Amino acid sequence: MNLLERRSIRKYKKQEISQELLDYILKCGIRSSNCGTMQLYSIIVTREEEGKKRLAPLHFNQPMVMDCSVVLTVCLDINRFHHWCRINNAEESLRNFLFHNIASIDATICTQAMATAAEEKGLGICYLGTVNYNAKGIAEVLNLPKGVIPVTTLTIGYPDEMPELTERLPMEALVHYEKYNDYSDEDIKRLYSDIEANPKNQAFVKENNLENLAQVFSQVRYNKKDAEYFSQMYKEYMKETFCEI
Amino acid sequence: MNLLERRSIRKYKKQEISQELLDYILKCGIRSSNCGTMQLYSIIVTREEEGKKRLAPLHFNQPMVMDCSVVLTVCLDINRFHHWCRINNAEESLRNFLFHNIASIDATICTQAMATAAEEKGLGICYLGTVNYNAKGIAEVLNLPKGVIPVTTLTIGYPDEMPELTERLPMEALVHYEKYNDYSDEDIKRLYSDIEANPKNQAFVKENNLENLAQVFSQVRYNKKDAEYFSQMYKEYMKETFCEI
Repeated sequence: MNLLERRSIRKYKKQEISQELLDYILKCGIRSSNCGTMQLYSIIVTREEEGKKRLAPLHFNQPMVMDCSVVLTVCLDINRFHHWCRINNAEESLRNFLFHNIASIDATICTQAMATAAEEKGLGICYLGTVNYNAKGIAEVLNLPKGVIPVTTLTIGYPDEMPELTERLPMEALVHYEKYNDYSDEDIKRLYSDIEANPKNQAFVKENNLENLAQVFSQVRYNKKDAEYFSQMYKEYMKETFCEI
Repeated sequence: MNLLERRSIRKYKKQEISQELLDYILKCGIRSSNCGTMQLYSIIVTREEEGKKRLAPLHFNQPMVMDCSVVLTVCLDINRFHHWCRINNAEESLRNFLFHNIASIDATICTQAMATAAEEKGLGICYLGTVNYNAKGIAEVLNLPKGVIPVTTLTIGYPDEMPELTERLPMEALVHYEKYNDYSDEDIKRLYSDIEANPKNQAFVKENNLENLAQVFSQVRYNKKDAEYFSQMYKEYMKETFCEI
């Protein structure tokens, strides 16, 4: 495996992942670090056509959902732990913001360990961030009880493409030593210059009739109106299923 | 590397990680998946004695902070992206709950890729969940500007122990096919029986004069009063530095 050369894979061969290989991937996720060995997550495996069809629109019909071999939806989960508390005359202590965050982090650690395990075996993966937009709808499809919220979605399959490595900011943009060194305007211009100069990105600016790439990101792809709408949806669902906020 | 045999390492040799090796680890983190290539995170490296001394009490003086070679605090970060927007006459669109969650997930994906990279090279790692308890205090030590919140902390160093693999729930407790199958009381009893039977865990129950292990977890280690206190702290800090909730 080469962690420096990995890329997300969005096109998959029509070849199923064996149960043995899937079990290996799941076990690697489960062996990763977690808070206090409480394992506050659950993994929902979607392999059947029927389940994929119901998930696809909630992921804005990204083709990976139907085309991959396995969809994994990893959820933060305090339902199992609280059930154990309840039958043991112990207080249910995790219905709060702190454990929403901790369980979400643990679900993600588990997911990334599974992603690496899959890639190590020659499979390709893609994260679907859309899971955070439509958490409640996805919860309904997967029959999640209260206290269980989808956090990440991975699609996995045998790669049918070898895309270029996607761009990254230079390391000095992302890493700080000892203290955070806030950026000057000049720093920002320099650090984003390669990304702005990429012809593919310049084409996006032109297509959208905008002035620059930052506007493409913040006014089209990840615009405020949508982000606020989906934030509100998430908060309402979180209050309903998890805790007051 | 064997993802199935990894364990968290809490005792380290007095041997520093070279800059070359640290750079490799950082690059592996940066190459992992992230939302829209926005890279909404920053990594703060703490190697100096002075910095570790200031972080240690905020991690409840867990000895790994002082004993490891490198502490990495990975933060969700919309400060850099919004700065780029600002100087480009683009809307700052990410100050909301959705992007708090997405950036937190991306920071964690990056962290786990670094953890795996370190383990692949024979280093040992330990996550410090305490970062979520004292996010604001850690932000002050690291000089984080608004829009930047610590999400994960990793300690890394050369291992000076080889602990037993820690326990995990059986796979059937954690994995669901197609739909979440909620647990009966009998299921819960069966799934937790090995953990409850572990002599180390039985000793904890006795030491604490409690009836069972669930009470140790939910009334001592992760009790409601502390969790609610730290939840409130986090929410206040989040409102101050990130967004209304």
